[in-house]
Amino acid sequence: MSEYPVDLEAIKRHFRQDHFAATSGVEILELKQGYARTSLTIEERHLNSVDILQGGAIFTLADLAFAMACNSGGRVAVAINTSLSFLRATRSGTLVAEATEVSRSRRISTCTVHVTDEQGTLVALFQGTAYIKDEPFPPQEAQS
Amino acid sequence: MSEYPVDLEAIKRHFRQDHFAATSGVEILELKQGYARTSLTIEERHLNSVDILQGGAIFTLADLAFAMACNSGGRVAVAINTSLSFLRATRSGTLVAEATEVSRSRRISTCTVHVTDEQGTLVALFQGTAYIKDEPFPPQEAQS
Amino acid sequence: MSEYPVDLEAIKRHFRQDHFAATSGVEILELKQGYARTSLTIEERHLNSVDILQGGAIFTLADLAFAMACNSGGRVAVAINTSLSFLRATRSGTLVAEATEVSRSRRISTCTVHVTDEQGTLVALFQGTAYIKDEPFPPQEAQS
Amino acid sequence: MSEYPVDLEAIKRHFRQDHFAATSGVEILELKQGYARTSLTIEERHLNSVDILQGGAIFTLADLAFAMACNSGGRVAVAINTSLSFLRATRSGTLVAEATEVSRSRRISTCTVHVTDEQGTLVALFQGTAYIKDEPFPPQEAQS
Repeated sequence: MSEYPVDLEAIKRHFRQDHFAATSGVEILELKQGYARTSLTIEERHLNSVDILQGGAIFTLADLAFAMACNSGGRVAVAINTSLSFLRATRSGTLVAEATEVSRSRRISTCTVHVTDEQGTLVALFQGTAYIKDEPFPPQEAQS
Repeated sequence: MSEYPVDLEAIKRHFRQDHFAATSGVEILELKQGYARTSLTIEERHLNSVDILQGGAIFTLADLAFAMACNSGGRVAVAINTSLSFLRATRSGTLVAEATEVSRSRRISTCTVHVTDEQGTLVALFQGTAYIKDEPFPPQEAQS
Repeated sequence: MSEYPVDLEAIKRHFRQDHFAATSGVEILELKQGYARTSLTIEERHLNSVDILQGGAIFTLADLAFAMACNSGGRVAVAINTSLSFLRATRSGTLVAEATEVSRSRRISTCTVHVTDEQGTLVALFQGTAYIKDEPFPPQEAQS
Repeated sequence: MSEYPVDLEAIKRHFRQDHFAATSGVEILELKQGYARTSLTIEERHLNSVDILQGGAIFTLADLAFAMACNSGGRVAVAINTSLSFLRATRSGTLVAEATEVSRSRRISTCTVHVTDEQGTLVALFQGTAYIKDEPFPPQEAQS
């Protein structure tokens, strides 16, 4: 398994092309090796039927940070399992998701993501497991 | 803990007001007590940066079915924990999420959701736990 | 990736050598390809400090069924992630865990395990994800 | 919901009566409000059929720390959902599980547990959700 050079700027550019995250309003704040931060400013379209931030919006926010953190090693990492705990209902303001790769073996990357509100209160806790392929990330065609 | 009458049509109408699910293109197919089905027809906006259905879109699809199933008892049920396994990458077509309440105690509802493609292949497996409150669902103000 | 012949009897014999499961009282009932059943008869040593079946005993019961189901393909499968929901407190009797491999790709096996009591009531729900290696199971040295 | 006085020593004594954890060799190291540590020294009886620490033994170690942390508030907390990721195979030595209550609402306690080996390497990551009852912990009869 050869190692590939890691180009964090190319990885960040690549994730800006995530259609669902972008149209959902998730923004990329930061990317370092094994670490990423994203944010979401809550609008009416993110709420559920009782006017609380919908679970899918929180998931999308956390999942993008997770995807960036586990792909920041320069090889394709594919999500296989995620766990998400909802700790506190939220209605407005900007949330930040902070993903940290807590373990990385040859084939498996495990990340935790903390989602906090503007007061720094933890509103959701996410854990993600990804399978690491023998392919460079970003994919070659996407870099040109 | 008094029981409330269950009005499945009112519950269905209520979930049609879920902003994030609706703007994400998730549709409600069916609701019975302890059971719900939703669907999502994949468009370009649902893809991620490598043109595969984004995890957040799958979560939103499964989560709405889960929310409907655990609220179908006529009392407010709030999601506290979810687990989502991605089994197969998908790029097009219509996915269906089928939620079944596998256990319901006084306070806790547990549901499993199977997400399948048009061939009936399982593409994602979701498990959700909700906390049941002493409040009628849909909330009174929403019914008027 | 070459395929290996599957010897279900050898796989069952191999899992009888699981020290922790055996000393915990977990018994093997059945093994088919992609399917396994185990049982546990509750004794005082399996209870927790409030005389309810301890979570670790339920996990051990479900995990052995999971391990057998995902290794029943004849290649080594290593658990990477598990989720366990406790649905009902149990104090006595015999529990049965039934594991089904719901999805198997080249590298990932996903199983669900239902744990039921003597009345057939679901008392716990388990989901497991395993990574599949390019090695035969049981390992060669263990077969001799 | 009245609050109950918290007696950490009584809580610790109570958890020493957890039959399954005790007979499995799990030891209690420390208990503070919202925080607990347990340990397990690996013996042959804790191994699985390929001589690696069995998943059920790791779960039992982590689960006791989780149970202590979420019950340390002086009210009965019952586990409803757990997630466990296996990060690294272990064969010998002493493992330590460190549980932290990351969120506590009126009804729900959420804890993360880090399991590390003697080198401080993370070998497993556990997340637990508990439902908090209106009852003092330890239960009254157990204190006498």
